[in-house]
Amino acid sequence: MDTVSTTRLRSDIEANAEFGRIDVDEGRGRTVLAGTDANRDARDRFVDRLEEAGLTVMIDAVGNIVGRWVPESADPDAAPVASGSHLDSVPKGGIFDGPLGVYAALEAVRSLQDAEVDLARPVDVVCFTEEEGQRFGNGLVGSSVATGRSTVSEALSLTDESGLSFREEFERIGYHGSGTVDASEWSAWIELHVEQGTRLEEAGAKAGIVSNIAGITHCYADVVGDADHAGSTPMDQRSDALAAASELVLDVESDARRMAADESPTAVGTVGSLEVSPNATNVIPGDARVGIDIRDVDNESIDSLVSSLEASARRIATDRDVAVRVERPYSVPPEPMAERCRSGLRSAAETAGIPALELHSGAAHDTMNVARVTDAGLLFAPSKHGVSHNPREWTDWVDCTAATTVLAGAIRSLAA
Amino acid sequence: MDTVSTTRLRSDIEANAEFGRIDVDEGRGRTVLAGTDANRDARDRFVDRLEEAGLTVMIDAVGNIVGRWVPESADPDAAPVASGSHLDSVPKGGIFDGPLGVYAALEAVRSLQDAEVDLARPVDVVCFTEEEGQRFGNGLVGSSVATGRSTVSEALSLTDESGLSFREEFERIGYHGSGTVDASEWSAWIELHVEQGTRLEEAGAKAGIVSNIAGITHCYADVVGDADHAGSTPMDQRSDALAAASELVLDVESDARRMAADESPTAVGTVGSLEVSPNATNVIPGDARVGIDIRDVDNESIDSLVSSLEASARRIATDRDVAVRVERPYSVPPEPMAERCRSGLRSAAETAGIPALELHSGAAHDTMNVARVTDAGLLFAPSKHGVSHNPREWTDWVDCTAATTVLAGAIRSLAA
Repeated sequence: MDTVSTTRLRSDIEANAEFGRIDVDEGRGRTVLAGTDANRDARDRFVDRLEEAGLTVMIDAVGNIVGRWVPESADPDAAPVASGSHLDSVPKGGIFDGPLGVYAALEAVRSLQDAEVDLARPVDVVCFTEEEGQRFGNGLVGSSVATGRSTVSEALSLTDESGLSFREEFERIGYHGSGTVDASEWSAWIELHVEQGTRLEEAGAKAGIVSNIAGITHCYADVVGDADHAGSTPMDQRSDALAAASELVLDVESDARRMAADESPTAVGTVGSLEVSPNATNVIPGDARVGIDIRDVDNESIDSLVSSLEASARRIATDRDVAVRVERPYSVPPEPMAERCRSGLRSAAETAGIPALELHSGAAHDTMNVARVTDAGLLFAPSKHGVSHNPREWTDWVDCTAATTVLAGAIRSLAA
Repeated sequence: MDTVSTTRLRSDIEANAEFGRIDVDEGRGRTVLAGTDANRDARDRFVDRLEEAGLTVMIDAVGNIVGRWVPESADPDAAPVASGSHLDSVPKGGIFDGPLGVYAALEAVRSLQDAEVDLARPVDVVCFTEEEGQRFGNGLVGSSVATGRSTVSEALSLTDESGLSFREEFERIGYHGSGTVDASEWSAWIELHVEQGTRLEEAGAKAGIVSNIAGITHCYADVVGDADHAGSTPMDQRSDALAAASELVLDVESDARRMAADESPTAVGTVGSLEVSPNATNVIPGDARVGIDIRDVDNESIDSLVSSLEASARRIATDRDVAVRVERPYSVPPEPMAERCRSGLRSAAETAGIPALELHSGAAHDTMNVARVTDAGLLFAPSKHGVSHNPREWTDWVDCTAATTVLAGAIRSLAA
């Protein structure tokens, strides 16, 4: 068994947690949006650590970082086994979501180096760009380019809310490199990520082996009413965009609850964002934009929830004399994981005596993209109380080590 | 009858509409927040126009502007009759809300000058600072200082969302003058404003003589849930701050509807603002701040609606496992208008043959403050379809002239 070092792994994750750190009452938080100074600092340190471990670093045109280890025993031209995750975060996010997978991949390589194992293939340690999609685009930006789902120029021309482009921000922080990481050239890919749920915790398991990743749909509903004076417009003469949007929020919630209770327990529906205009206390809202996230491992239930949303929008528009337009700009299907990778993870857990659980993933992760072009696996570490995207997100250090041990074992067998 | 010039009045309002102008598909919009460059430009032009009409201009410490006309016949030490309104707007507001009252007061003076009437008292033409409260404080800032409701130093120390202070912004635009306008020294005050409702339009009246102004309460409800991953948190394990806030929005609306239908037809309740955090499509909202506006001419119904709000907050907190804290930082009582001013307006409308209607005001206006320290009146011009705080806000130029004629007649009789 390869010896994963808790000390090395923990010090990497804790050092990384300082970038974009926010003050919080409870837990440890950070805000590391793609292309910001905090993201640059986190990337700089990661590149240093790759080089310290003797890996050869390349930065591609959209800022994806790959450190390649070619063991002496390996054919340098063989298709590598790759592993990694991302370093960006949601606003006010936790310290494990992304960084655990990035630094666990590096720690797996270091443990394999220490064990002086003979491997036939190189191993790539990967950081994908803008996984969360909190600044540029809808998320998974780096892995979309690396898997041919979108082009370099599409990614570079994305802009943030203030109008700054992906290209200028990545040039500014020194991570607009050259070429493109091509995930289809990898022999296999495995990502370690925190579960962001409670199934491992409830089962007492320390490794979650993902069977398939839920499909994701994002819809936006634009509600248009009439912005009027809050004091002088009688209650029966209003066309209030926020009141209409509030009905939609509650409909999305109750439709998803019903679907999860009666038909598909893995279904979820969330209104995560709501923008109100003019958003002044003394003005009846004239416009509201509702951002909806719908997921399931089953495409049919996703489509059914979108249909329910559209029906709600029509009913609300009629009842309240507002206009509601629903668009569905983002829709990716569920993605099964490769049996080769799942069995590699299963064997590694068994060998190390680490209790594992097979489960689905409600979160997408870059693995969702990679799975379209090569054999892919996804491994979960337990999340305390299932909390994530929140400074209270937590995975005990011994659990980080256990999951990294499973990862290292799987990489070893896949690269053998 | 004094001859009010539609041409002069219209050209003043249209010139003023250029400051902070926004591009819109329909109507004419402007965004003139207090202390901005657009506000400075609007003020500079107003001061020029006061001086062109021979008025003596003073700027007080919070940027209130007064132009004083002392007719040859008048005792310069007699208590003046004052009239005016404000030049700031809500974001994406219309061109009449405020500027009509400011420039109508000036046009009334010019028409009285043209008619060479003998008046015993000076006439003050007034622009109050930050009526809308869209940048600094809760609104009515200038008239609050002029009526002793708040102090100069309280106003100067207000800050906007970006941390800029009222003092530095008004120094920057050149409107941090000296001294304080003292409204209690006025013999009487009348403000002309657009109705922002449909009662005049429906009655075919051209002048609305306000009997009393509704009291206003602002409440804020802070909802705290748990920010969690939208994909990996099952529907039955969520504490969603936005879904909870949406219930509150609908409760405020239904409570106010019931109150208006069953008990007090003048009651209104509005959620005008809603801030969601972290406000990302793929994160369950952890926090939501709901801004509520409640008004009526009757204090009891306002208090009753606040009690209903608090009861809703308690119920939602229990049902949804969120924390909800309600505060009521702003509460002003209803304010009756002075009979002297109302009869002055009534007589002026009769003399000019302009059809008038007595009604209440759901909007506050600076008159609400002035009425606490001297005899005050409020006059409405019709608003097309009742629309206001919106680029589609409109009052026909002939209706502006008619209302200004009533204003000039009332000033004439009050200053006689």
